[in-house]
Amino acid sequence: MTTRELIASIRRKQSFLCVGLDVDLNRIPLHLLEEEDPIFAFNKAIIDATHDLAVAYKPNIAFYEAYGVKGWEALRKTMNYLNAHHPGIFTIADAKRGDIGNTSSMYARAFFEDLGFDSVTVAPYMGRDSVEPFLAFKDRHTILLALTSNSGAFDFQTRKLEGRELYKEVLETSKKWNNSSNLMYVVGATKAEYLEDIRRIIPDSFLLVPGVGAQGGSLEEVCKYGMTPDVGLLVNSARAIIYASKDRDFAAQARKAAGELQQQMEHILNR
Amino acid sequence: MTTRELIASIRRKQSFLCVGLDVDLNRIPLHLLEEEDPIFAFNKAIIDATHDLAVAYKPNIAFYEAYGVKGWEALRKTMNYLNAHHPGIFTIADAKRGDIGNTSSMYARAFFEDLGFDSVTVAPYMGRDSVEPFLAFKDRHTILLALTSNSGAFDFQTRKLEGRELYKEVLETSKKWNNSSNLMYVVGATKAEYLEDIRRIIPDSFLLVPGVGAQGGSLEEVCKYGMTPDVGLLVNSARAIIYASKDRDFAAQARKAAGELQQQMEHILNR
Repeated sequence: MTTRELIASIRRKQSFLCVGLDVDLNRIPLHLLEEEDPIFAFNKAIIDATHDLAVAYKPNIAFYEAYGVKGWEALRKTMNYLNAHHPGIFTIADAKRGDIGNTSSMYARAFFEDLGFDSVTVAPYMGRDSVEPFLAFKDRHTILLALTSNSGAFDFQTRKLEGRELYKEVLETSKKWNNSSNLMYVVGATKAEYLEDIRRIIPDSFLLVPGVGAQGGSLEEVCKYGMTPDVGLLVNSARAIIYASKDRDFAAQARKAAGELQQQMEHILNR
Repeated sequence: MTTRELIASIRRKQSFLCVGLDVDLNRIPLHLLEEEDPIFAFNKAIIDATHDLAVAYKPNIAFYEAYGVKGWEALRKTMNYLNAHHPGIFTIADAKRGDIGNTSSMYARAFFEDLGFDSVTVAPYMGRDSVEPFLAFKDRHTILLALTSNSGAFDFQTRKLEGRELYKEVLETSKKWNNSSNLMYVVGATKAEYLEDIRRIIPDSFLLVPGVGAQGGSLEEVCKYGMTPDVGLLVNSARAIIYASKDRDFAAQARKAAGELQQQMEHILNR
């Protein structure tokens, strides 16, 4: 999907909501455990209930790998379902990968070609040649970790690398990489006050913003400092939506939680 | 596996060789493609031919994910084979994972519990709470990226964070994390001259050293600066061993290549 198509989808749906599909079998409704593929059954129900409210879905790959081959099969079925029934929805493999060049190429093939994702999250620690193999894919997006939502972000990311915070050096340096127009960045909602500085370095890039809701970040703050004329934001919510209820009404409750966020977003977009 | 058992295995085999199982279907002998599971067939042949010469095997997970469910199945079969037939061999999931706490826990379960690896490689960018879920597993090891073998290592790792190179800050900071005795570190052989400084910060920790062979690193240099009284090194070689031949004699040629490295290691250990 091109960035232009993503922006059009945001305008049409009046939403920049990304729903995190982080499926934990201990947290889904009990009756789904009787299904042949509980993870896919859960995802399908969530997608069916929220696809008009969300512009993106983001499975965190850890939750699938934890279930081995079955998890991987559920991930593939989820992607096939999304790409067949909702090709206009942006898909994010939250994988936080990154390795030496020929190995990153294998990861890029896995997520872009084999599974058909529009984008994948990548860690910057190994530098340019670990990221460029992802950037080489046309109309696919590489979402680089910049400033994450967790407390460990303060261990290295916010400390000064040669006079400037590491996460800013990541932003600045990555702009010089080949096909850097395919870059987006992860910036946690719990660190919204940093967004003003971030927008000075990358005024137009899309940001994937986790941490609204369960982790405590504020949608208002994120939009105040992070929004661009083309919106430039994908705000992720996972637990607050997909685990809104553990009962048979879980999909309806997920829709309700997603709808509340979408309404807030529509309000902000029309201000 | 405990560190003590790993050291005993190194002494017994007179080897600190790790064989990288980075299986690319375009590079394995053609006749194996007729097998039901070519990746596992290849790994089994390599393991059968080299298990007395190597103390560790390291599948790079990217190469398995690139083949989707089939790749994941081949990885599981490989791990089952290793754990059933060679329980004394140390296994490394070269995954370079790392995410917020509850997600890192899922990755840790995937590699330690579901697949039965002794260790997993983890990226440090997200800091303490992204790594400690891995460290919580007793007698399992977390191999933190410190100074990698690729050119991109110079983008951030070797630059100064508050006066000291980022990779040194990673080493120093990680020593304070819970269960840090379960830490090992990745240090590329292509940067052997940095090992003297590294040993001042972590005098005893085991280092996983990629980059000998195809990437140009020198075994002699690595040992000169990196070896400890308990050896403290696992030197990885992948392509030079597993792709020593693309013909029917590939396993014998892999054994020959592994044997040459083991002989050099035995020589160094007895100097």
